[in-house]
Amino acid sequence: MALLERTGEEVTRTRLAAELGVARSRVETVFPEDGDLFDAITAEWFAPKLAVMDEVMASDLPPRRKMYEFFARRFRLLRQNFRDDPATFNLYVEMGERYFEYARSYIDLGDHYLCELIAEAQAEGFLEGLDVDTAMSLINQMVLCYIQPYMVAMLNERLSEEKLALIVAAIFDGLNAKDGGARGTQDIRAA
Amino acid sequence: MALLERTGEEVTRTRLAAELGVARSRVETVFPEDGDLFDAITAEWFAPKLAVMDEVMASDLPPRRKMYEFFARRFRLLRQNFRDDPATFNLYVEMGERYFEYARSYIDLGDHYLCELIAEAQAEGFLEGLDVDTAMSLINQMVLCYIQPYMVAMLNERLSEEKLALIVAAIFDGLNAKDGGARGTQDIRAA
Repeated sequence: MALLERTGEEVTRTRLAAELGVARSRVETVFPEDGDLFDAITAEWFAPKLAVMDEVMASDLPPRRKMYEFFARRFRLLRQNFRDDPATFNLYVEMGERYFEYARSYIDLGDHYLCELIAEAQAEGFLEGLDVDTAMSLINQMVLCYIQPYMVAMLNERLSEEKLALIVAAIFDGLNAKDGGARGTQDIRAA
Repeated sequence: MALLERTGEEVTRTRLAAELGVARSRVETVFPEDGDLFDAITAEWFAPKLAVMDEVMASDLPPRRKMYEFFARRFRLLRQNFRDDPATFNLYVEMGERYFEYARSYIDLGDHYLCELIAEAQAEGFLEGLDVDTAMSLINQMVLCYIQPYMVAMLNERLSEEKLALIVAAIFDGLNAKDGGARGTQDIRAA
């Protein structure tokens, strides 16, 4: 990852061997396939994000505080990663798009945790009438700019913990199975 | 734009002249600078989106319905553009990132309209205590996946009018200047 950050380019096993000045066979002992190298990079990238999620899930906060921390802590890490080195951050974003399957299990784990948070919120009467999958999809969409690396980079200064907290509050106070007439039944008329 | 769609590549004035079998000077009469060509492409891309926004703004719908239609009609156009031709759509997205300044005035107009919708909502007691700029930023963030072309392409099947209506309802029923304790003051404790 240091090589990737220094050169601003993806790292293969061949380049890694050249960089380390060792035989390719030695690198292949550790990473039998190129995929094993991507796996290792993905694991390193996600490790701190998983750590903060685990920490929040193990806490005894009330649902609203817990969901806020669940997103806010990851957001702060992503924002810090981006601000420390925007070029490398964007390279990871591109790699994440190209090798999405390597990130799949981490994203699934995040969704699994979010389902737990939804169950805790519903036990207290929030998110009424929504099935868990729909609630999960809606919440992920509403906070997307705070957890999607591409959007964190693009919106940067326009994102803040204060705004995220207000969005989480809107999820708890206003999100349920009824749209209150937003879609309506009649077509629009000119005023 | 037909040339761009057929070749999957950006069009310059030189390529356009070659394609049309006319002298470059003839193309330069219409587009004195390359920027004039980008301007024209941007205008064509935004024209149908502006038309639906104008139509909604001219209607006499109640605020919640109006805000839903404001986003839903653009979302449907973007989704249709993407599904009709994903490769061309992604090319426009990339061009939009590279030549962002050409799109600026259209995005500003959308924000200007959204401010009107916020004023109408606040006149009926919604979005309480939020200044217009903060409300605009929060709402744009909450519906981002439905209006940001890159996210419309990426999320595709996971986006729906039903979900957008529930998000708009959460904006009206749950978004205001209070986070209800989401941020809290104390740090998290282990359970």
